[in-house]
Amino acid sequence: MPESRLAVIDCGSNSFRLVVFNYTDSWWKRTDEIHEAVRVGEGLDATGKLQADPMERALETLELYAHFCNAIGIDAIRAVATSAIRDASNQAAFLKAARKRSGLLIEVLSGEEEARYGYLAAVNSTTLSQGVVLDLGGGSMQLTRVDGREETEGRSWPLGAVRMTERFLPEGDKPRRKQIKALRDHVASEVERAGWLDEGGRLTGVGGTVRNLAAAAQLAAGLPSYGIQGFRITRDALRDLIETFSAMTASERASVPGIKFARGDLILAGAVVIDTVMEVGGFGMIEATAAGLREGVFFESLLGDPPLFDDVREVTVRNLAAQYEADFAHTEHVAQLSLELWDGLAAAGVHRGDPKERELLWATAMLHDIGTAIDYDDHHKHSRYLILSAGMPGYSPREVALIGQAARYHRKGNPGLGEFTALARPGDEELLNRIAAAVRIAEQLERSRDQAVHACDIVVEDSSVSLRLRAEVDVTIARWATERQGDVFRKAFGRELSVS
Amino acid sequence: MPESRLAVIDCGSNSFRLVVFNYTDSWWKRTDEIHEAVRVGEGLDATGKLQADPMERALETLELYAHFCNAIGIDAIRAVATSAIRDASNQAAFLKAARKRSGLLIEVLSGEEEARYGYLAAVNSTTLSQGVVLDLGGGSMQLTRVDGREETEGRSWPLGAVRMTERFLPEGDKPRRKQIKALRDHVASEVERAGWLDEGGRLTGVGGTVRNLAAAAQLAAGLPSYGIQGFRITRDALRDLIETFSAMTASERASVPGIKFARGDLILAGAVVIDTVMEVGGFGMIEATAAGLREGVFFESLLGDPPLFDDVREVTVRNLAAQYEADFAHTEHVAQLSLELWDGLAAAGVHRGDPKERELLWATAMLHDIGTAIDYDDHHKHSRYLILSAGMPGYSPREVALIGQAARYHRKGNPGLGEFTALARPGDEELLNRIAAAVRIAEQLERSRDQAVHACDIVVEDSSVSLRLRAEVDVTIARWATERQGDVFRKAFGRELSVS
Repeated sequence: MPESRLAVIDCGSNSFRLVVFNYTDSWWKRTDEIHEAVRVGEGLDATGKLQADPMERALETLELYAHFCNAIGIDAIRAVATSAIRDASNQAAFLKAARKRSGLLIEVLSGEEEARYGYLAAVNSTTLSQGVVLDLGGGSMQLTRVDGREETEGRSWPLGAVRMTERFLPEGDKPRRKQIKALRDHVASEVERAGWLDEGGRLTGVGGTVRNLAAAAQLAAGLPSYGIQGFRITRDALRDLIETFSAMTASERASVPGIKFARGDLILAGAVVIDTVMEVGGFGMIEATAAGLREGVFFESLLGDPPLFDDVREVTVRNLAAQYEADFAHTEHVAQLSLELWDGLAAAGVHRGDPKERELLWATAMLHDIGTAIDYDDHHKHSRYLILSAGMPGYSPREVALIGQAARYHRKGNPGLGEFTALARPGDEELLNRIAAAVRIAEQLERSRDQAVHACDIVVEDSSVSLRLRAEVDVTIARWATERQGDVFRKAFGRELSVS
Repeated sequence: MPESRLAVIDCGSNSFRLVVFNYTDSWWKRTDEIHEAVRVGEGLDATGKLQADPMERALETLELYAHFCNAIGIDAIRAVATSAIRDASNQAAFLKAARKRSGLLIEVLSGEEEARYGYLAAVNSTTLSQGVVLDLGGGSMQLTRVDGREETEGRSWPLGAVRMTERFLPEGDKPRRKQIKALRDHVASEVERAGWLDEGGRLTGVGGTVRNLAAAAQLAAGLPSYGIQGFRITRDALRDLIETFSAMTASERASVPGIKFARGDLILAGAVVIDTVMEVGGFGMIEATAAGLREGVFFESLLGDPPLFDDVREVTVRNLAAQYEADFAHTEHVAQLSLELWDGLAAAGVHRGDPKERELLWATAMLHDIGTAIDYDDHHKHSRYLILSAGMPGYSPREVALIGQAARYHRKGNPGLGEFTALARPGDEELLNRIAAAVRIAEQLERSRDQAVHACDIVVEDSSVSLRLRAEVDVTIARWATERQGDVFRKAFGRELSVS
């Protein structure tokens, strides 16, 4: 399959970032990134112009990025600029110098365009269908109203974390209550004007402030953390963080677990901005996503019009499977057999047949073997590692943990939630048992990897389940191997297993 | 690069195993495995013949393996049989039936051939140059004398763990001292006849008994365990395990951490056989390797004549790098720059210039980016995961931990031994600081990935080190980025860093 690459260069107010995406018809992934703390907006507020030193840093960084793209042989490059460069009166001179020094053509995004890329990042990395996307950067904040996954309203405010910190919270010192209140009032009066914030739905957050707050909230709650994708920060948790940060200096905040060192001075103002939006919009929680402006730009190129994945959860699973998986015929067949088994047992009333559980089973079956890309030995554990590391867009941390644990137990061992118990809901232990058992049995039926067992009929009796295998060749070993899974089946479905 | 595959089918006395190796000119890896507990040797000792039921299980398993090879499209297959099939009087009838049912031609190995494959597995997965390879299976044990990496003597004894358990230790019950002594005496009298056991060198162990004992010893010592490759079991540790096992029933032994469930009945006899060989040969420790007969067969195909890797440690690093790495020009350049820096500092007397440390630095530089194969985000942590999971042949667990930790700190963070402290020797903290700092600085110099910084000259003064970069293009950003690593450099080399 031909592999394409796109480099997105994001010239933000605080930092410039080059991100390389590789993609084919069946998968995409981020393969490279260079980040440089250019702070091109330094001194801009006071003068309205990009200053000489920041401009020189920006130009040298763009030269480095151009060298990098050249060295790795990429010619598809999209360079975009946001708030600081958008607002600078000497923008034209900068763009010309950039062109001359690096050969790069930089596209300056309007506030609406910037909001749109944040929206594209959010709806293509979460299941948000109705609600609001909040994208908080250093210079500006974008809010977008989403209805049936479509963008219906969207605009940008100069309420970025750096701007708000500089204006309302004195550097280094612990802030006074009055200062925080002034910040809150300012943000509220600005965003209330939108008029469409409090029309319900979910709130999804994009940007470094949201990611840092999610990481901090996750750690504060003692939850296992494999990234923040899909993590929901409740307003209570956010208020606790604001309370904590308010009593600290910037350098103390920088050492709160989850907060990156360079963000200690900005995190409090950022948190207050978000909390105020939640207040005004009547949102009880904000869901974090790791995708951002850069992914928005990439998705537009990847997907065409409309730039939306049909089903984010399905795309996530297929993307991961395609990146790591070699033997699709086998994987798809294990998925088919495990769903047949699960459906047959649901039809007979052995379990409830919850469609969400069915989707997790499908995801597990599709991903159970991806760990072989690392090493055959312990590949069940490597599959878990890859699943947990993937930050699966569209799935919650709890769901990712369940898929990971089920994949880990697809060969052997006694399924258990292990370190993920803190993420679980009542009944998840049983759900995990059912998924692991269904995948493990399907794997045994498909042991010869040649789809010899076409399908299986399920006959359920009071205390036993009998699988009738449909095959044209001798499948004695598959039958034996499957029968050996009696223990895991009994634990999951409370019945004896027999195979004929 | 064209990818080839070889399936090795090992028809052992206890279990049959199909292993698939994929390889190109630059890497090889195990990609698949099916294991079936056939127990073809059941009842053989009493009658001298393969019995009807075990034979049928064996034939069905071979059919399954043939289906599997067909399904995944492999036609290069080498099927070999050892002890049980070698010794059976109805061997010919079995081989004919196997041919008819599965199409497979099984090659029956002599004891000497079996010993040779154990030897090839050991010398190609460890640095053993002088000493003895012990390969303990269910039916037989092979010992091979190695001199300058060559096999000088080798033979097989019917002292396998199953045979010894059945003959000397009553099933299920706790053994009596007398029984263990009888087993020891028997083994000692047998192996003493070789006459070349006690000629010194190292002892390297192959086979499931050795792997289980190594895992148990590692856990008993409270060491972090990422596999047993290169772990050394001291005689004291082995005696402690024998002591423990002797006071237990077979099912109690099966639940000792590190011992696989199905091995509880066999592990004591196996441990006593190994301990007796150590006693007779005067060995103070036995080094475990994960490679076995199957790898021996594969290495013979892969390597031709002589079937020996020139340098096992180098091959391990290059094999891993080639499996996961895309950008070789970058990796090799980071290795070159980091070695230049390290060498320059050694020449100026800033550190001792230990060649072992230099080799670990080279390995780290070659592997620092392999984690990008998993995901760009956190790729330094993924690199560590891949390094630790690889079971790097030729390196000790301590060395693997040091390479893994240095790769983990090649981008940011304060280098530390973390959970690997228990494996470390005095001075390893400092060694890790030096390796991490050298790789991190080289990585920053090679930030544009285009080898713009050709080389660097190092000028050392009392309290400072100055790097003079050789480059034809502007490398301002590389210089800045490198200078920002002043902290990690100071911690490692006790001097200020400047770059010009």
